Formats: sequence, C-alpha cells, structure tokens
Amino acid sequence: MKTAVFVKPGEMTVEDRPMPEIKEPTDAVLKIVRACVCGSDLWWYRGISDRPHNSPAGHEAIGIVEKVGSAVKDVQPGDFVIAPFTHGCGHCAACLAGFDGDCLNAESDGEIVGYQGEYLRFRNAAWALVKVPGQPGDYTDDQLNDLLTLSDVMATGYHAATSAEVHQDDTIVVMGDGAVGLCGVIAAKLLGAKRIIAMSRHADRQALAKEFGATDVVPERGDDAVKAVMALTDGAGADAVLECVGTEQSVDTAVKVGRPGAIVGRVGVPQKADMNTNNLFWKNIGLRGGIAAVTTDDRQTLLKAVLDGEIHPGKVFTQRFSLDEIQKAYEAMDQRKAIKSLLVVSRATNN
Amino acid sequence: MKTAVFVKPGEMTVEDRPMPEIKEPTDAVLKIVRACVCGSDLWWYRGISDRPHNSPAGHEAIGIVEKVGSAVKDVQPGDFVIAPFTHGCGHCAACLAGFDGDCLNAESDGEIVGYQGEYLRFRNAAWALVKVPGQPGDYTDDQLNDLLTLSDVMATGYHAATSAEVHQDDTIVVMGDGAVGLCGVIAAKLLGAKRIIAMSRHADRQALAKEFGATDVVPERGDDAVKAVMALTDGAGADAVLECVGTEQSVDTAVKVGRPGAIVGRVGVPQKADMNTNNLFWKNIGLRGGIAAVTTDDRQTLLKAVLDGEIHPGKVFTQRFSLDEIQKAYEAMDQRKAIKSLLVVSRATNN
Repeated sequence: MKTAVFVKPGEMTVEDRPMPEIKEPTDAVLKIVRACVCGSDLWWYRGISDRPHNSPAGHEAIGIVEKVGSAVKDVQPGDFVIAPFTHGCGHCAACLAGFDGDCLNAESDGEIVGYQGEYLRFRNAAWALVKVPGQPGDYTDDQLNDLLTLSDVMATGYHAATSAEVHQDDTIVVMGDGAVGLCGVIAAKLLGAKRIIAMSRHADRQALAKEFGATDVVPERGDDAVKAVMALTDGAGADAVLECVGTEQSVDTAVKVGRPGAIVGRVGVPQKADMNTNNLFWKNIGLRGGIAAVTTDDRQTLLKAVLDGEIHPGKVFTQRFSLDEIQKAYEAMDQRKAIKSLLVVSRATNN
Repeated sequence: MKTAVFVKPGEMTVEDRPMPEIKEPTDAVLKIVRACVCGSDLWWYRGISDRPHNSPAGHEAIGIVEKVGSAVKDVQPGDFVIAPFTHGCGHCAACLAGFDGDCLNAESDGEIVGYQGEYLRFRNAAWALVKVPGQPGDYTDDQLNDLLTLSDVMATGYHAATSAEVHQDDTIVVMGDGAVGLCGVIAAKLLGAKRIIAMSRHADRQALAKEFGATDVVPERGDDAVKAVMALTDGAGADAVLECVGTEQSVDTAVKVGRPGAIVGRVGVPQKADMNTNNLFWKNIGLRGGIAAVTTDDRQTLLKAVLDGEIHPGKVFTQRFSLDEIQKAYEAMDQRKAIKSLLVVSRATNN
C-alpha cells in the first residue's frame, strides 16, 4: 500500500509499504479516504524538531474500518469513521474527565504510523474512533472536508475555546490565523461569543476569519496588539483568549490582552517552556489547554455541528492534492500558499 | 489613636498617630473591633520583602463605620462591617466579572494604612465594605473570629478553591497547612468535595485540617508527596489542587498531583516568577488564581455560610493578643507557635 514517508527535512515521498496488520486486540486497520497536513508536521519537515528519517507521516484522516481486533466492539468493518490523532481508552480518569488526549492508558509500542497513506494501523481503537453515519459517498465534497477537520484541527480549535471557558456573549481574542486559529474562531462563535477579535495580518486569512465569525481583525503584534485590543474593549481586555500559535510572543500577548479573571486557552505547542507566571497571578489570568480531547468533543458537540451544517471548518483546506503529490502538499503549507493542504487518498467517495 | 507600626524587621510597636480623616469622597473611616496578623505580613517582618520602616501595618479587620465620604452610600456610620484587604469599585470589568481583587479603578494615593490599629482610613469604600447584620455585641466570640476571617484568609482559601474549579464529589489536594490552606480545606468541603487530601506535617494543623473536612493527610513533600497522592488516587491524581504556599516546590508538586485536566488554583504569592509550563501543557493542567475576590465571595457565599454556622474558619486563630501585645502577636506566628494571631482591638463587643 502507498503511504507518505518523511525522507529528511524538506523532502517527502510516497513509498509502497506492507499492509498494516492487527497486532493488538485494541487495534483497527483503516482504509483512508482523506488525510491532510498539519502545521505541526512542518516542524520536522523544516528540521526544527526531530523525527526519524524514512518514517510514515501524518495524524489526521477519515476512512473506512477494514479490520478490527477482538477488543474493538464500538466499530465494525465497513464503518465510516473519523480517525482522531488522539487514542483515548474511554475509561481512565483522564478520559472520564473529558481529556482523552491525555489518556492514562495510551501506551504505544513505538511503531510510527502515518495517517497520510492508503491504510493505517489505528491503535487503541476500542473507544477512540468516531463513527460517522452512512458512508463517504453519502456526503458532499465540502462535508467530507468538514468531517476530516474533526480528526484534529477543528477539535483543537474547539479545545482552545473550551479551555479558555468561552461563555455566551463573551468578547474573545484569538491568537493565530493558521488553520487552528481559524477553527478557534468557529469554536468561539459556536460557544456563543458576541465579539471575536482575530489577530491576523494576512488578507486571505482575515477574510476566512470574518467568514467564520470574527467581528474584528487586529493585524498588529506584541505591545501594539495589546494596545489595539485594549482600545477595542474600553481598556478592560478580553473575557477569554485562545492561544493557537505557541511562540513566546504570542503567549505573552495572550496573557496581556485578557481582563482580570480571563483564561488563556492554549493549544499552540509551547515554543519555550519557561514563562513568567507572575503576569498571570497578579491579574488572576488563567492558563489552561494542551492536547485536544478529540473523541469526546467530536461525539458531544462537533460531529453534530458539522452534520447539521452549523459549522464549515473544511474551508481551511485551500489547496487539494493526491497522495502522490505529497511533496507539493507540504510545500504549499511550508510556503504559506495553502492555509491547510488536503490529501484526497481513496476513491471511496462520490467525488 | 493607637496603631501597630512596623519599626524594622523583627520589631513591631504600637504608636499614637493622628486620627484618620476622610480625604476622598469614596473614603470611609472605621473603628476597628478585631484585626489579625497575616502570613504575608511575616515577609517584611522577617526582612524577606521590603516595607517602609515606621509604617502602619495589617490588612485584615472587622469594625464599625465611623465616618463616610459623600460617595459612600452602601454603608453608614454605625454599620458593622468586614474590611476586606481588597478595594473593588463594583462596576469595572474586573469587579463585574467577580474579580474585585483586581479592580481596574483601585488606585491608591500612596498612603500606607494599617488595619492593625484603633481606626482605619478605608479607601474605595463605596462598594467594597461588606455589611454584617446587627452589631458586634450580637455575636459570640467565635462568630466574631469567623467574621474576621472574611476580610482575607477565608476568602483567599475560597478563591483557591473556586480558581481550581472544585466540583461536587471531587478529590482535592490542598498544598499548605497555614491558615490559608486550612481555609482552603473548608472551602473545598463547602463546594462539595468528597475527598480532601491535606498536605501537612504538623500535628496541630493536621488535626484542624481534619476538623475542617480533610479526609486524608499527606506529610511528605516533593516527589514523595506526589507518590503518596497517586497511591491514594489509584494513579490518577486529584481532580483539583489548591496551592496555598507559593514556593517553587509547592507549585511544582501541585502541578504533578493533578490528573489530566485538573486546575491548580493558587493563592500563595509566587516565590519564583519563572516556571516550566510544559508540565501544564502536556497534561492539560490549568493554572489559575491570584488575589482573592473578597467582597464578591463574602456577599455571594461566605458571609451566609458563617452566619448559618456552616463553616468555622475563626478556629485558625489559635492565640489572641491585645493591640499593645503586637510584638508578641507577630512572634507567635513567626515562631509557628500560633497558626494565626488574633488582635482584639476594641471593646465594641460582648466579650
């Protein structure tokens, strides 16, 4: 089967690899329909973080269940599923509390799997897979893209919003205009935010942020951005802040634009571990967030919102590629030509 | 009028100073009935933090309104009040959001006032003072002590618990067995916690923690404390953590004893600003807290709980002194002979 492989920084290829097999009772094998490239994939693509060379890549997909291990009862071969990047067991204290991205039982045997391929060995499939009604052919092209975002990016934007405890009628700041930040705008609106201030300096992303529900756009950064938000909020600051970047400057700005008592919900993987938390304490600013709770949030909220047509996160895919075009898919994101690159993998769709 | 004065580190005295006057329309002058010594007073008493020498001291009291400025309508001369250490205006974005300890209008003219004295100029009194029904003489000695804790220590313990978002039936860890930590135990129980693990290594404080509702006591510190909590929680960690110390070790332990998704509610003033927040991110541990919202929480919850006899935070006062004994009151806390030192200032009581 064909699968995307990370050769070395800057170089992706497609190779023929053995079909994945069931190794554990909790495994499933999926036939991938659509996958995509994540902003976090760019870290190792750009050589900023380490990843073994010649390893399969990707962690977002939708597909059809091909085989299941004996412990997998929730889904059956033939089911159409979202394949989260998380692998919750569904019954540990973390999963029960709604944090399945931090599942206490999600051990790995070390095999690196890649969702950007024709087939995938999905570990801990007993609970984590999210079943979608019907078959891919029952959905439009746009709907399939919306569903694909529920494997990571939309769930991650939503996690930023729930971590920040967005309430009805709140004024929100969203740091970051990448696909996660844009999904954060969708999430803030879904949770009832009245005013959504998107921090963005790119015209195409500003436009999409507004389409998704942003009421204001602030192109400034750093202290100028803080001043702009304060001017927009009568000097008070925002009720909640979604931090979808992870750089030191973005986290710093996120803390400064919150009103006393606001929570910064962060999903941008921290670029720098150490931070001055006095800035939090003296303004009662909270810091929450981390790995998204994909299965929990998909099942409780996001799948219905997509199926009802209430949200359209699939619009973050501004370029589409076949699996064979994997190098181009990464380049488009690396060069900021695409907000997010879609990979149409199999013909198990009506498109 | 007599007031406690900080002479220099290690030396307190009582001096005769001019009667405080109304300087601003939002001022009130209070005749103090009872005051007390705070753990944070020990910082400058011990010379760890700076404070102008020969300045009045203290920030916790109950008393009778003596005079009010023209803008003060909520209270009148003769009213019995709790004098919070906070000075919320009641109408800025911070106060409206329930964070009056971070009031956006609480400017000071720089005058250092001391609650440990016969009279007090209380700034921003238009909203911040908490009126108590009746007069001091209507209350028992124990009730007056309970009411006194609502000026800071009980409200601060409660703020740790609300910042940590303690829910019904939760398992809680409370870091710190000082008066604030002990009030944190009370707060956790008040909010419905099922299991309260108090971190304490002093027999008298362990006993009071249990009286207040602690179900388990862990005397270890650091990694041993983490192991002990994990053993008590089947390896999961606590649902919420109250950090009432502020040292680097305590904050570090607080983060490590939380289950994924737990929030550390901290009110211990941070000893060290920088911390590694990756430990938060990868377990979705939240960090909230700061200055208590005394007026809000007293009015919404704590005053009723005291008046109903549901909580008895005044038990943290294990030694009592007259104002003239101010040096002894500080020494008792400095030498850990008292959990918290009470100052009985005026005879406007039935005791």
